[in-house]
Amino acid sequence: MRQFVVIGHEAPTTPDFPLEDLPGAAGRLDLLSRSITAAFLRSHGLREDVRFRLILGDEFTLRFEGAKLQGLNPDERSTAARVRSALEQREGAIGHQAVETSPGIYLARRGVEAALRDAAEEGTLLQLHEDGRPIVERAVPDDPVFVLSDHRDFTEEEQALLDELNAERVSLGPNAIHADHAISVVHNYLDTDGYERY
Amino acid sequence: MRQFVVIGHEAPTTPDFPLEDLPGAAGRLDLLSRSITAAFLRSHGLREDVRFRLILGDEFTLRFEGAKLQGLNPDERSTAARVRSALEQREGAIGHQAVETSPGIYLARRGVEAALRDAAEEGTLLQLHEDGRPIVERAVPDDPVFVLSDHRDFTEEEQALLDELNAERVSLGPNAIHADHAISVVHNYLDTDGYERY
Repeated sequence: MRQFVVIGHEAPTTPDFPLEDLPGAAGRLDLLSRSITAAFLRSHGLREDVRFRLILGDEFTLRFEGAKLQGLNPDERSTAARVRSALEQREGAIGHQAVETSPGIYLARRGVEAALRDAAEEGTLLQLHEDGRPIVERAVPDDPVFVLSDHRDFTEEEQALLDELNAERVSLGPNAIHADHAISVVHNYLDTDGYERY
Repeated sequence: MRQFVVIGHEAPTTPDFPLEDLPGAAGRLDLLSRSITAAFLRSHGLREDVRFRLILGDEFTLRFEGAKLQGLNPDERSTAARVRSALEQREGAIGHQAVETSPGIYLARRGVEAALRDAAEEGTLLQLHEDGRPIVERAVPDDPVFVLSDHRDFTEEEQALLDELNAERVSLGPNAIHADHAISVVHNYLDTDGYERY
């Protein structure tokens, strides 16, 4: 299974944001929505072997399961509307109990630390980082969990936690690129088995 | 210079479309807008060495020049608004004369054939195609012009023209992916000099 964890530092935690201003009033939900669709959509259908965790402002985690996801559209607006409708059910997420807000989408009251610890138990943590080891220099991982930040850098606390969890820093190239573009690159790297299989 | 040509078969040619329904009423302008931003944006600033031609319904070509482009935002809505504002000036595009609709964006009354012939004079045409030769099996091109289709396949006429112009079919991997994701993959391939430089 391929996993992605994206930390949305300024992402909304309540549903009172406008779909008309995703970059501003919705805390870069444009970028986060594109990251979701980059993780799941290819030309023909959905990538079922993907799990995606979107951490919303260190308060909630929205988990997407490719095997159960239905009706995900490729545009930002409808994807952001999914996030908003999930947050409308935030009162249903009590304690560690997640609520399924639409098919294959689960909202839990779990912040950065809890979400990263959950993910670390499920695979190999790989932190995308400009100064990391070139991704082509390591073997293609079996159950990779790629950890990405939004438009902001990882905080010191997040970095300390990633270090504690033995996340490996890997680089995708000499230029820093946006999270959604990085996800497309990662999928291609995995699809081709490390640029070996076309 | 890196170039991209994207054929928007159902793209609008008039400005009377709503920004609230880019996938439907605006002819997949969500995908086309993401393709534009994938071509130009990295984390820090704009890729200046990129030229992008968006062909709108075989009637107009909107050309974006990275060296002159200003204020391009990463979200679909504001990028689609740029396209709409360009189309509001469509009467200014007369004959072969392009009109600069905002800094670095030029609208010309040129359809698929004219746009592809223009692009073919400026570099090596590479058609992204599932059945193409693996991109890693050829040398990294100096002045590549990647030609992509939107959500629809190339038409027979377009394919015949690409063949006449000696476009080389290259594959990015075993899975067909969306045009915007393919552009991110292509940039990574070029940024790393064919996965050699990180």
